[in-house]
Amino acid sequence: MGNNGDGWHTPAVEALRAGPRNQVVDLDTNGTPGFDGDKEFGTKLIEERGSVLSDLQEMLFANGRLGDERSVLLVLQGMDTAGKGGMVRNVIGHVDPQGVDHTAFGVPTPEEKRHHYLWRIHKALPRDGQLGVFDRSHYEDVLVARVRQLVPESVWRRRYDEINRFERDIADSGTTIVKVAMFVSLDEQKERLAERLERRDKHWKYNPSDVDERALWPEYQQAYQDMLDKTNTDHAPWYVVPCDRKWYSRLAVMELLIDAFERLDLDWPEANFDIEAEKKRLAES
Amino acid sequence: MGNNGDGWHTPAVEALRAGPRNQVVDLDTNGTPGFDGDKEFGTKLIEERGSVLSDLQEMLFANGRLGDERSVLLVLQGMDTAGKGGMVRNVIGHVDPQGVDHTAFGVPTPEEKRHHYLWRIHKALPRDGQLGVFDRSHYEDVLVARVRQLVPESVWRRRYDEINRFERDIADSGTTIVKVAMFVSLDEQKERLAERLERRDKHWKYNPSDVDERALWPEYQQAYQDMLDKTNTDHAPWYVVPCDRKWYSRLAVMELLIDAFERLDLDWPEANFDIEAEKKRLAES
Repeated sequence: MGNNGDGWHTPAVEALRAGPRNQVVDLDTNGTPGFDGDKEFGTKLIEERGSVLSDLQEMLFANGRLGDERSVLLVLQGMDTAGKGGMVRNVIGHVDPQGVDHTAFGVPTPEEKRHHYLWRIHKALPRDGQLGVFDRSHYEDVLVARVRQLVPESVWRRRYDEINRFERDIADSGTTIVKVAMFVSLDEQKERLAERLERRDKHWKYNPSDVDERALWPEYQQAYQDMLDKTNTDHAPWYVVPCDRKWYSRLAVMELLIDAFERLDLDWPEANFDIEAEKKRLAES
Repeated sequence: MGNNGDGWHTPAVEALRAGPRNQVVDLDTNGTPGFDGDKEFGTKLIEERGSVLSDLQEMLFANGRLGDERSVLLVLQGMDTAGKGGMVRNVIGHVDPQGVDHTAFGVPTPEEKRHHYLWRIHKALPRDGQLGVFDRSHYEDVLVARVRQLVPESVWRRRYDEINRFERDIADSGTTIVKVAMFVSLDEQKERLAERLERRDKHWKYNPSDVDERALWPEYQQAYQDMLDKTNTDHAPWYVVPCDRKWYSRLAVMELLIDAFERLDLDWPEANFDIEAEKKRLAES
């Protein structure tokens, strides 16, 4: 990743890492940070890199079967229409379904509400050897919970530290965490919502409350910025991904995931049996 | 499905349905029942039909989001190397990961052993609108449990009725069940196991106990036949799929699934809001 000739002049992990250079309010949501290829090239690259991701995931899965306790967790956060669903379909869709632990977090159920907000998150953490995918996450509890004033400020404020400790524990137990904040512009969101209203096969994706949320855009931007500032840790880094161009956002997350897998330095697990003896037994069976 | 010109002279649901014509001991595991196309055509067809399956699955998912309680459950049973993993990857891999509830059932854990054998099955049933996939299932409890004498005969014998009632309840609550029994020949299994021993990237799939199981082949064939005879119901039919040719088995299961989805007679859900009013609100937002 990040080599010359592959379209990336700066690796995605560098270009997109949250920090002073990547502020929510200044973000060019139509940009393609780090990448200077066009849509056609990027789209082709997604397919190629999908195979790489798939191979890496199979290797993690194989190791998991033989006792390796590591896993990878992709956290997707973003406003409605940012493209979380399409990200799952087009990036995670490249890997073997049996190696994926996917969870979409909606409005908490009555049972979930009776528990600590991290209860449902704990239950959904990826098993050993799995790629976990969170479509929304515990970050809802410092985003919508804050903007919609579902809890007092003193409550959501202390959650940042709580979340950092929680993610520290997960990371220490072998989970590589990749957090992706997805951003579209207000105009792009309007276009995407309009499409959902135009197309019969998209009506189910539309929710009238999405329009209400648009009035709260500045409040959400502030909540996202604070989230990035307070929970962008080395053990659970945030990446800020412009999503007006769907192909770019998918390619970028593909690269972020590949980077996470490559840092695990995986190899096929050693056989835990005598290969030659087994060949003989099999031949005689 | 099953039309002229698409390679199928008999629909998969007819050609493969368990019954007197499809006896385990007589099965041509190298056959392609119902289909007279070749591998090249079949492989191309898998891709085409994968798009159809994907669209149907999205429609079920959409309805599930709006309160439709129906789901589809694919049960895969088969001896080692029959190709269950490849089936998941190559058939289920065509649909959106967020619409799939996949569970692989291994040797029961200590916790699972302390419960009724259907406990872990119940917990893994697909949620509303989801496509559930079982890689092995409760049928292990009348297969390996019987052949390996893990429980007395009186125990596994009464399980057939229990399973039929259980599946009746699931079907009544809106789950369309498709059960697939996958068969390879002893020779084909030997080749596939040998490949796992030859290739470093396949060692993790090999288990010395697989060779022990080969000695029990006739006992397993009998157990599979009894399972088919006793649990092949209209509400949860069994299909007998020859699997020496991987491409055929995948195409066949693709067709079985598409048939199950088509019988749901799905359409995009109606908008539960006033479309014109929302267009106006959105334009003003």
